[in-house]
Amino acid sequence: MSLALLQALDRSDPLAAKRQAFHIPVGLVYLDGNSLGPLPVTVREHLEHVLLQQWGTDLIRSWNTHGWVDLPLRVGAKIARLIGAESDEVIAADSTSVNLFKVLLAALKLRPGRRVIVSDIDNFPTDLYIAQGIAELLGGYELRFVKKDQLEDALDEQTAVLMLTEVDYRTGYLYDMARLTQLAHQKGALTVWDLAHSAGALPVHLNRHGVDFAVGCGYKYLNGGPGAPAFVFVARRHQSVTTPFLSGWMGHKAPFAFVPEYLPAEDIRRLTVGTPSVLSMSALEAALEVFEGVDMEQVRQKSLQLTDLFIELMEPLAARYGLERVTPTDHARRGSQVSYRHPEGYAVMQALINQGVIGDFRAPDIMRFGFTPLYLRFTDVWEAVERLRQVLQKELWREPRFSQRAKVT
Amino acid sequence: MSLALLQALDRSDPLAAKRQAFHIPVGLVYLDGNSLGPLPVTVREHLEHVLLQQWGTDLIRSWNTHGWVDLPLRVGAKIARLIGAESDEVIAADSTSVNLFKVLLAALKLRPGRRVIVSDIDNFPTDLYIAQGIAELLGGYELRFVKKDQLEDALDEQTAVLMLTEVDYRTGYLYDMARLTQLAHQKGALTVWDLAHSAGALPVHLNRHGVDFAVGCGYKYLNGGPGAPAFVFVARRHQSVTTPFLSGWMGHKAPFAFVPEYLPAEDIRRLTVGTPSVLSMSALEAALEVFEGVDMEQVRQKSLQLTDLFIELMEPLAARYGLERVTPTDHARRGSQVSYRHPEGYAVMQALINQGVIGDFRAPDIMRFGFTPLYLRFTDVWEAVERLRQVLQKELWREPRFSQRAKVT
Repeated sequence: MSLALLQALDRSDPLAAKRQAFHIPVGLVYLDGNSLGPLPVTVREHLEHVLLQQWGTDLIRSWNTHGWVDLPLRVGAKIARLIGAESDEVIAADSTSVNLFKVLLAALKLRPGRRVIVSDIDNFPTDLYIAQGIAELLGGYELRFVKKDQLEDALDEQTAVLMLTEVDYRTGYLYDMARLTQLAHQKGALTVWDLAHSAGALPVHLNRHGVDFAVGCGYKYLNGGPGAPAFVFVARRHQSVTTPFLSGWMGHKAPFAFVPEYLPAEDIRRLTVGTPSVLSMSALEAALEVFEGVDMEQVRQKSLQLTDLFIELMEPLAARYGLERVTPTDHARRGSQVSYRHPEGYAVMQALINQGVIGDFRAPDIMRFGFTPLYLRFTDVWEAVERLRQVLQKELWREPRFSQRAKVT
Repeated sequence: MSLALLQALDRSDPLAAKRQAFHIPVGLVYLDGNSLGPLPVTVREHLEHVLLQQWGTDLIRSWNTHGWVDLPLRVGAKIARLIGAESDEVIAADSTSVNLFKVLLAALKLRPGRRVIVSDIDNFPTDLYIAQGIAELLGGYELRFVKKDQLEDALDEQTAVLMLTEVDYRTGYLYDMARLTQLAHQKGALTVWDLAHSAGALPVHLNRHGVDFAVGCGYKYLNGGPGAPAFVFVARRHQSVTTPFLSGWMGHKAPFAFVPEYLPAEDIRRLTVGTPSVLSMSALEAALEVFEGVDMEQVRQKSLQLTDLFIELMEPLAARYGLERVTPTDHARRGSQVSYRHPEGYAVMQALINQGVIGDFRAPDIMRFGFTPLYLRFTDVWEAVERLRQVLQKELWREPRFSQRAKVT
């Protein structure tokens, strides 16, 4: 594998032009799009319009004239295409955590005789926390949080819901959504999938696999900006029986009738609660333009090429400096990131960031590298490994400043 | 009352200079700041910085270097000063509706033997809807929604929570927060106040009156932008016993430890759930700069002068054209808006908007006029009434286009 070959790959990359759609600082190799996607160029232009024309000039009239009232549905429909859903099955709203609360609670109520929530103990903590909050609220539930290899055995006739994140945030492990959904259904359980690390990163097939509920994040692979609104999916067959216990006025059948009795909207809008965050949601809407005309199968193909390449280039470094890869080599089980354990992972990552390669660290010892095919080049992968080699060879990470923990790591 | 006198009042107005802090379209009289505050000039500058420098250039590092992680606390502290709370009692998060869900649920759990929620049947619908959602979820609760004059009698030893909005969104009626909070406490109930139409509009004294919980809106009198993040207040004495059932990772004691067990933060941060919406919350933070150095008593004084003036100028019009004022004349019972009923209120308001005076309409027949002392002039009030006079005298509202209902009214 030579740099010249990688340059040739970049030249023939059908997604190469997409890089121009992003504001990527010169010289930076950004391998943290799985934590915060970079700024799409369209977002800046669109937000200027939203600020000055929509808010600043047209003011309250923009609810109608600029379609603020349908913004959550419009954004949801754009996301639907990326995750194998129909456009009326997805809506943008709130945060991933709040959306998870809505659908997990609703799903449990659809299985009233069952008292077990199954999940992976290594699921992203907020997913586990939300389940804990609901269990405390309702009482009498068992939280069956197990290791990955025990998940299938954990499903039984008492299971109300199987709740998983499609790609493990630490290791990049990609779950078999088809198989696990099928197994859960065979036991009579419902499924709630968190797509935080898969929406926009790889083809997701919610309806093909018969998924019941899903949630996901707007600020990772969808590039909607820090803390962007999240989204929620409810399969059409469940929409009319999904009780919105977070019953705010935007989910009402007729929000502007201002009647005192709550009647849920008959469609996916019942999953919304309060007034949508127009600035943040407009940023997400503009960011999603990047995906127009993009074939997610093509994205997936390049993603696997990038992560294959990274793993290959890292092999000698990993062996020499004691980095343990925790991401599967099997394509069928790999998301769009590669992670390594290292006892000094925090300091090594800080030193690498100082060299202009941004990945991140997850406690206790995981260095994460995310690969987003829309703006990463094959030569970026080479460059990242070269700079990491410098950090390890010269032991740059031993500088005391790199081991001082920041608030957010 | 002459226009010359009003011009003199504008010249001597100590708040006059604040108008420069807002982007107000030329020739427009904006009387809808109680629905959507106008764009503060600082917001545009700050958002440009957040987009290009913080998100675009510094990317994920901004969580630390630009203090995104403390943004909800910083914004909360700025709001605290305006509502009579300590800076560690308020945090910005989610929407008003979601925040109401959190504190109403927590409050009910603090009164486990009691099964009644008391509110005004004319409360803003989302408040009533959230209570209905919680009642459906928990079962066994009575929703005692009564008319204003029956509220005091409705409080009894079974009352768990008294939930009210300080200023009635339709009529502008200002509740006696001190008295009602005291009466609720005498019965052993807790209070949840919604400050949507009072925060930033008039001095609020949460701690002076012993309020237990409160929520409020960022996009009305706080001018944070359409759908801006909301805020939530928990009195210090209740913080450690307020259970966050919406237990997301940002409310965890150590969010970045990524442990599987939820342990709530010991402070107000336990009221947060998911990742904060940084773009929208940064807009709100910048918008709050407008209030720096502003004395809310001075704001209140001008607000009452503006609404007194409007009522006075409207008297002959109201009598002649059948407009029924529903806002109290008593200063102690009036918020910062004046509302009139008219059977053709929708069309009249549309015709008035077409004349460059923006108020709004609330079903079934209420025309609302909001008065925000930071950017309204006494001459604006004169101008608004003059234009309304034209609409009524010339019956401009009879044009068919003005009676066609928009999605959002």
